Amino acid sequence: MNRLQMACKENGPLCVGLDTSPNYLPPEVLKKFASPAKAVLAYNTELINACAKHSGCFKVQIAYYEAMGLEGLQTYVETLKLLREKNIPVISDIKRGDIADTASAYAKAHFSGDFETDIITVNPYMGFDTLQSFTEYCKKTGTSDFAKEKSIFVLLRTSNPGMQDIENQILQDGNHVLDRVGNHLVELQKFFAQNYGYDENEICSPVGAVVGCTEEQEAINIRNMYPNIFFLIPGYGAQGGKAKIAGTLLGKAGGTVNSSRGVLCAWKKSSALTEKQEAGILTLDDIVLAAEKVALDSKTELIEMAGKYSV
Amino acid sequence: MNRLQMACKENGPLCVGLDTSPNYLPPEVLKKFASPAKAVLAYNTELINACAKHSGCFKVQIAYYEAMGLEGLQTYVETLKLLREKNIPVISDIKRGDIADTASAYAKAHFSGDFETDIITVNPYMGFDTLQSFTEYCKKTGTSDFAKEKSIFVLLRTSNPGMQDIENQILQDGNHVLDRVGNHLVELQKFFAQNYGYDENEICSPVGAVVGCTEEQEAINIRNMYPNIFFLIPGYGAQGGKAKIAGTLLGKAGGTVNSSRGVLCAWKKSSALTEKQEAGILTLDDIVLAAEKVALDSKTELIEMAGKYSV
Repeated sequence: MNRLQMACKENGPLCVGLDTSPNYLPPEVLKKFASPAKAVLAYNTELINACAKHSGCFKVQIAYYEAMGLEGLQTYVETLKLLREKNIPVISDIKRGDIADTASAYAKAHFSGDFETDIITVNPYMGFDTLQSFTEYCKKTGTSDFAKEKSIFVLLRTSNPGMQDIENQILQDGNHVLDRVGNHLVELQKFFAQNYGYDENEICSPVGAVVGCTEEQEAINIRNMYPNIFFLIPGYGAQGGKAKIAGTLLGKAGGTVNSSRGVLCAWKKSSALTEKQEAGILTLDDIVLAAEKVALDSKTELIEMAGKYSV
Repeated sequence: MNRLQMACKENGPLCVGLDTSPNYLPPEVLKKFASPAKAVLAYNTELINACAKHSGCFKVQIAYYEAMGLEGLQTYVETLKLLREKNIPVISDIKRGDIADTASAYAKAHFSGDFETDIITVNPYMGFDTLQSFTEYCKKTGTSDFAKEKSIFVLLRTSNPGMQDIENQILQDGNHVLDRVGNHLVELQKFFAQNYGYDENEICSPVGAVVGCTEEQEAINIRNMYPNIFFLIPGYGAQGGKAKIAGTLLGKAGGTVNSSRGVLCAWKKSSALTEKQEAGILTLDDIVLAAEKVALDSKTELIEMAGKYSV
């Protein structure tokens, strides 16, 4: 997490989301490859090369790879390998959550072996004991071998309308359900500060939070409530118009702002590519260039907003 | 779900959990195979053949397969294929949960292609909109082609101590967080009854609930609150002593009671195998036989308890 925080200071807070559905590629590009999974791997490879300098990290959403079966997961493995070889921080958006030995199996699955990554996202619904198998791996950080440092982002406040159903429900004591999660994250942070030499006030702990772009006042409140927690911020990009709120959430300990479709499908909105698109003659280079342009624009916008609105 | 309900009436309510960690195999069996994943596939195959007549269904916990990387997922695919070829209902315990297009990708991943299964488990934390992509597939049921019928089990009340952290928190209106989930499941059931010809009072809808073995009074309450919802009941078996509570939860619409380690690791507790175990000469046949015996005992116990204690 600390490495991610540094990378975001250096390259800007954009997180390019490789939620690469084959549907996000034009048919004329797709058909040049032996399979959708191979096309996705080629697109990911080019995107990583083009966008690395404009982003603090990449996020890989495993659902899109699972949807392509075993071959899709082969592409997932290759994508992680590429990023880790280049020493680019990578978040695996897997939202796993389970108990006891099963949680340990998930931790082993994503913090070692074929699917080894740097950071995973975790769902806390079944309770805080479900986080333990993951934080066990986080304890092993602090060495100089970055590739072995592991961290987690716990779902705190997601950006979908359904967040009202459980996350935002008010408890008897007046707190929201999500505050219980937040309070536990603060406790975990204290634990890491006390036991593993993390400085609570300067360097963020290996436990971060997923906080979606929401209303402005809520963003201010949530950033002020958790000043030392690094945020993974979805909901910017394809949806649009949320840069100001992202800027607010980027205050204090900072965060990384994900854009997936906004970058992946940039070619669809590129006026320079309209003719080629209509003629069905887009190339992989064309769509990567469009993606790179949006990544650079997003980076610039986010840095500006972070300077202007961060609390 | 309806097919599962019938299978449980016919073969008893036991669900054999193929949470097959290679650690659950004795080293002398493990080393006979080219890899842990191949050993697991051999064990699963023999277990399915031996235990099919004692169980209403099988549950495959994907975490243990993910932990073995791509080769592990190949074993996962083969295991699902075997079960589906034999027309045995299979639950994939994946506990996925995500929003919008990502949820659709998960639904596609597990209701079609390499990982196609009959029923999946789902985590509702991010809100009820996250269930929609899955229930879309459930709508397509009702044909005579069983292999195409899809259902889900939504996490309602899990059996780990951490269930107090969120699931069991009391809301301002006096209800528990988990009641909100339960009420939504009842609404979904009404929807399916009204729109797809399911009979609310006789045939369970394609949406079931995960309800762990808990305290007796709570089990009675939860069964009475949701009389028409079919339950997936974990927490029986390895932990022991929960058969009476399982019996209670098996009342009304019924359910299926999972035993994973209790069956998979039966050889460790078999007095008939103590000498062979100490001598390090256990065979695959030995451990399958021990598993089958425990499966039969569990089935017998559960049927007795369901007769005696079901509400």
